[in-house]
Amino acid sequence: MLTETSFIETYLKPLCSSRGSLNLSDDAAILSPDPQQDIIISKDILIAGQHFFETDDSEDIAYKALAVNLSDIAAKGAKPISFMLGIAFPEAPEAKWAESFVQGLKMAMQQFDLSLLGGDTTGTKGPLVVSITIFGQIEKGRMVKRSGANIGDQIYVSGTLGDAALGFKLRAAKEETKNWSLKNEEKAELLEKYLKPNPRCALSKLIKEYASSSMDLSDGLVADLEKLCAASKRGAVIDYDQIPLSKPAQKLFFEDKVLKSHCLGWGDDYEILCTIPQKDSETFTKALRTIEIPMTNIGQIESIEHGVIYRNENGDELSLKGQKFSHF
Amino acid sequence: MLTETSFIETYLKPLCSSRGSLNLSDDAAILSPDPQQDIIISKDILIAGQHFFETDDSEDIAYKALAVNLSDIAAKGAKPISFMLGIAFPEAPEAKWAESFVQGLKMAMQQFDLSLLGGDTTGTKGPLVVSITIFGQIEKGRMVKRSGANIGDQIYVSGTLGDAALGFKLRAAKEETKNWSLKNEEKAELLEKYLKPNPRCALSKLIKEYASSSMDLSDGLVADLEKLCAASKRGAVIDYDQIPLSKPAQKLFFEDKVLKSHCLGWGDDYEILCTIPQKDSETFTKALRTIEIPMTNIGQIESIEHGVIYRNENGDELSLKGQKFSHF
Repeated sequence: MLTETSFIETYLKPLCSSRGSLNLSDDAAILSPDPQQDIIISKDILIAGQHFFETDDSEDIAYKALAVNLSDIAAKGAKPISFMLGIAFPEAPEAKWAESFVQGLKMAMQQFDLSLLGGDTTGTKGPLVVSITIFGQIEKGRMVKRSGANIGDQIYVSGTLGDAALGFKLRAAKEETKNWSLKNEEKAELLEKYLKPNPRCALSKLIKEYASSSMDLSDGLVADLEKLCAASKRGAVIDYDQIPLSKPAQKLFFEDKVLKSHCLGWGDDYEILCTIPQKDSETFTKALRTIEIPMTNIGQIESIEHGVIYRNENGDELSLKGQKFSHF
Repeated sequence: MLTETSFIETYLKPLCSSRGSLNLSDDAAILSPDPQQDIIISKDILIAGQHFFETDDSEDIAYKALAVNLSDIAAKGAKPISFMLGIAFPEAPEAKWAESFVQGLKMAMQQFDLSLLGGDTTGTKGPLVVSITIFGQIEKGRMVKRSGANIGDQIYVSGTLGDAALGFKLRAAKEETKNWSLKNEEKAELLEKYLKPNPRCALSKLIKEYASSSMDLSDGLVADLEKLCAASKRGAVIDYDQIPLSKPAQKLFFEDKVLKSHCLGWGDDYEILCTIPQKDSETFTKALRTIEIPMTNIGQIESIEHGVIYRNENGDELSLKGQKFSHF
């Protein structure tokens, strides 16, 4: 078992490269921002039993905690810079757990050029809490908001949706999923999508350049698109059959339509939802080729009177109202 | 019971006055810092059953959550500006609970000129979590660190120490405290000190102007002074009988010396510990009169070889090694 001091000294301190962290030996950290840039701030708390399984490898827990925060920064068109890490432990961690946790942080930090700035360690009588506040930067006034979508803008999503929901079901709902006709590698693919979201940081420059509005999909397409439309005071028409799906998801959703709508409402995709003005749509699509992140045009922004409508390939309207995720 | 959306819309949105909060309708908040200033960041997580009692009034929980974070900013000589609020609810809150919680936030926000910037709401299967990241500002390069103490500097603490520990005992250790000979108003005073720490923001300007090092006392004088000395690579001699105590604490500690050392090691004081160069000590003491926060000179910084020593009025050295607080 580690003491609080040894956890900080041995495991966290080596992660501090920025001067503002004061090597984790002060009450506060210092951020000296570039005067030309805005600081973009997001905060996501992850709790065992809620956002990950208590038994998950601590490397995966740490990676996911950073990934979901990075996803917010990417969606805003910003470049990640640093983060504050809060952890509440139900009991003092073992050295092995701490090593692997730090390994997960390191992977994400190196991959996305992020430094640890400071934080808080404490105890809890409840499940493990990992609370991250992340900082990004972007030229002043350039953050891409949820609120900029205009009528006629094309709606894009990155990657494929619903996989994390299926991955979660594979772990949590053994009875429901035992007859799913998936190969082992397909199961592994879905499990990985739940365990290790892939923040789309490589998209951020294009979002900054082209998107009229953008957000990351953490609470499911159904709830999140509605939030984007509400912030933009617009409606949307979505081509339900155009929503990008992975091979295993296609297979499962073909057999079970209800499962599809459920998974699209479930969240944890951490893909990007953004709108591109019609006139820039072609240039945007061309520019995408340079970054190897697939994006799919799934519909179009309409006036607010339309509300948010999902249509299938026959043009029939689908009701997905019941599929909005809420944490409580 | 409130939904997540109604908690945010009805209770949190009205707290947002800064433009950068985007009225809580985006994934991220924007901080546009003054180019002459550094951003000072601190993070403190509070968890029911650990940092407050589950049954505490939600107004007090909210106030305390901000107060302990404000205390860090004050200790650094900085001016608070805004904060990110994370909450994890074990169950959806009642409207009454939310109203009172927001009331507590508002009180601290108005008192210390603070605005809500953004945050995260989520659910948990464990106890209530309130995770705050606070931002302050100070002229570039002026943050007062733990690491600036020099030999001969005078050591000061604000207010009185050990009261919060006694207040906690009054609530948690009924058997141990039932024979304490205190008047009801003295009990109330101690309970209040635990429930509602008083962040010393009014001290921050003088700290910035005079202090060579500074920190807030959250983990108890014994552990925190050692941290300050370690960061400064110095030792200290403390006049144990000069440590400022409230009337009820004096009474209890006179009868029970072990209780005194225990309470000084317990934490939750949220008073300021700082060092003032000998030559500025008189000017500092005079300047203190303008702000009505009592500060007591409890000792002096020595060379690192001395270690941290506590001496009683007879000059005898006391051992307080066992009194260092750790969260796990």
